[in-house]
Amino acid sequence: MSTKPIVLKLGNVMFGGEAWDNLAKIADVITIPNSTTREQFIAGLKDPNNKLSKIQAIARTYHSVVQTGRFDEEIAKAMPKSLISISHTGAGYDQIDVKYFQERHIQVSNVPNLVNNATADTHVFLLLGALRNYGIGHRGLIKGEWVAKGAAAGAPLGHDPVGKTVGVLGLGGIGHAVIDRLKPFGFEKFIYHNRRRLAPELENGCQYVSFEQLLEQSDVVSINIPLNPKTRHLINEEAIRKMKDGVVIVNTARGAVIDEQALIKALQSGKVRSVGLDVFENEPEVPKELLDMSQVFGLPHMGTHCVETRKSMEEFVVANVKSALQTGKVISIVPEMKNDEWINQCKPLV
Amino acid sequence: MSTKPIVLKLGNVMFGGEAWDNLAKIADVITIPNSTTREQFIAGLKDPNNKLSKIQAIARTYHSVVQTGRFDEEIAKAMPKSLISISHTGAGYDQIDVKYFQERHIQVSNVPNLVNNATADTHVFLLLGALRNYGIGHRGLIKGEWVAKGAAAGAPLGHDPVGKTVGVLGLGGIGHAVIDRLKPFGFEKFIYHNRRRLAPELENGCQYVSFEQLLEQSDVVSINIPLNPKTRHLINEEAIRKMKDGVVIVNTARGAVIDEQALIKALQSGKVRSVGLDVFENEPEVPKELLDMSQVFGLPHMGTHCVETRKSMEEFVVANVKSALQTGKVISIVPEMKNDEWINQCKPLV
Repeated sequence: MSTKPIVLKLGNVMFGGEAWDNLAKIADVITIPNSTTREQFIAGLKDPNNKLSKIQAIARTYHSVVQTGRFDEEIAKAMPKSLISISHTGAGYDQIDVKYFQERHIQVSNVPNLVNNATADTHVFLLLGALRNYGIGHRGLIKGEWVAKGAAAGAPLGHDPVGKTVGVLGLGGIGHAVIDRLKPFGFEKFIYHNRRRLAPELENGCQYVSFEQLLEQSDVVSINIPLNPKTRHLINEEAIRKMKDGVVIVNTARGAVIDEQALIKALQSGKVRSVGLDVFENEPEVPKELLDMSQVFGLPHMGTHCVETRKSMEEFVVANVKSALQTGKVISIVPEMKNDEWINQCKPLV
Repeated sequence: MSTKPIVLKLGNVMFGGEAWDNLAKIADVITIPNSTTREQFIAGLKDPNNKLSKIQAIARTYHSVVQTGRFDEEIAKAMPKSLISISHTGAGYDQIDVKYFQERHIQVSNVPNLVNNATADTHVFLLLGALRNYGIGHRGLIKGEWVAKGAAAGAPLGHDPVGKTVGVLGLGGIGHAVIDRLKPFGFEKFIYHNRRRLAPELENGCQYVSFEQLLEQSDVVSINIPLNPKTRHLINEEAIRKMKDGVVIVNTARGAVIDEQALIKALQSGKVRSVGLDVFENEPEVPKELLDMSQVFGLPHMGTHCVETRKSMEEFVVANVKSALQTGKVISIVPEMKNDEWINQCKPLV
């Protein structure tokens, strides 16, 4: 019988194969079938005859939620005592209710920095698309309407960056990368809001403002905050009402930061002129009325959908798992757990 | 009878109204009906009872080609002797065969610098769209295919800027603005080709290479050259063959710089992985087989389709007309005429 620790790999790995092969030298790597349901998964975790009941580390992807459902209280309670860590492949770990795993002293790690550039690239793309009405012209073009509709296939004139204020909601790693990219485009001003003001040397030339000031002063609202109970529907009807008429909103964070129904109304009324959205509240389900508005320039969650970033993320997740096994601690523990005393008691497994 | 010089305004003015109102104080501004045909226009120019036969300056837009056709030899020969200048609203003046107007000592001006930023914004947008496969994901999203096709609505993983070489064909005002914007994205290297190497202080950190080297070394070919008989179909089957397999091509200059049929074949074979196109060879007609390929990320010529840039362009065109009337010389004469001796003989009309 193998004495190697058991690692559960949830979700497809596209590029980290070599890293996993190396990990397999020190661990017994298991998976679950793609057809697995949440019920089957939980039953497996509780069945002493199933290897799932002996797992010591988990690596998971965003899309593995299809097999397991969210990592919520029920899943946390079903986890075997042997489990020491869950390593998520992505920056946003809102699919994991951290507090229930914290109670059970199971470490949670994410991929905080490697995603910044690819996500910021997506953000800038969507911002330009919404500001300049490129999405409207693109739809007209691919529908073959250019001849009939004339200039720009009927798209209304867009706006230039000149004179515009960009309000960055959440000046963290991704927010910084967004601003670095936007600087040469000639925007008038960058303002930001975080819960706490950053040290001046970390502000990247942005002016700190309150949440209300950000809503009131921004021509473009750039959303880069994680989803959690406090940020859920932060951009609701009331927040949108405080924004400038004709504001442009860009969201590459998580869909549920915006109240999607309130956004639809504000787009229909013209209060919000256009949006650039990589994320939606109930993706992959997106309300048809949202999709059908040509001033909605959207992508199906492609923030880090690229070869080079995906490869480095997958390799980093394996590094997190390996670190958990070899040192007892993941590399990039989530902020909520960072100061927990119990972490210091975690011991190597190999 | 008015003694004011007669100015012909061709095409719609959207934002320069105030400038035109001011010009009307020193000039008799006339227009032609939108329904005018080329034949009617030429007949009017030759008819001594028509004011068109007495025009002294022309302002024109890209879309006015619908009424007049290209400003070619026939139009140049039909122009009245009174005409001293034609002021085009745009950077690219390939709709005007400059030499025939040169022979008749009619000055031609364009809008060389004001378009740089808006065109470069469009270029960067299309480059990101093609490199990251955003266009493919966007099509899947708006068709409602996300649920059925899974991650990114079935779009293949795109590529990051990291490690990539961007080859700028035409490092002029727009090319420089493109590079300024692309620098923070983390590309590996910028190379460029102009007919003549720029002074090192004007190279903006780009490495000068031959045309062949640019084709061979670029992961992304960025086209920013004017259309003229020498650049027509410069990117043809032979040029594409020299490019890297899976190259990305971006064109915001003029469609006919690329042999569209050769491009279609190269996209179908996969030689060219994806393209970002703001311009097409016979726009607004675009071959359906080009539009139907989701790896073709296109816009209906929206390079400067934005309020602020359009306004400044329209005002600058009026300034060119005014300068012609008041000083005898346009402000921004096209390069082909810059050193012409006859320009010095041009006299004010007011």
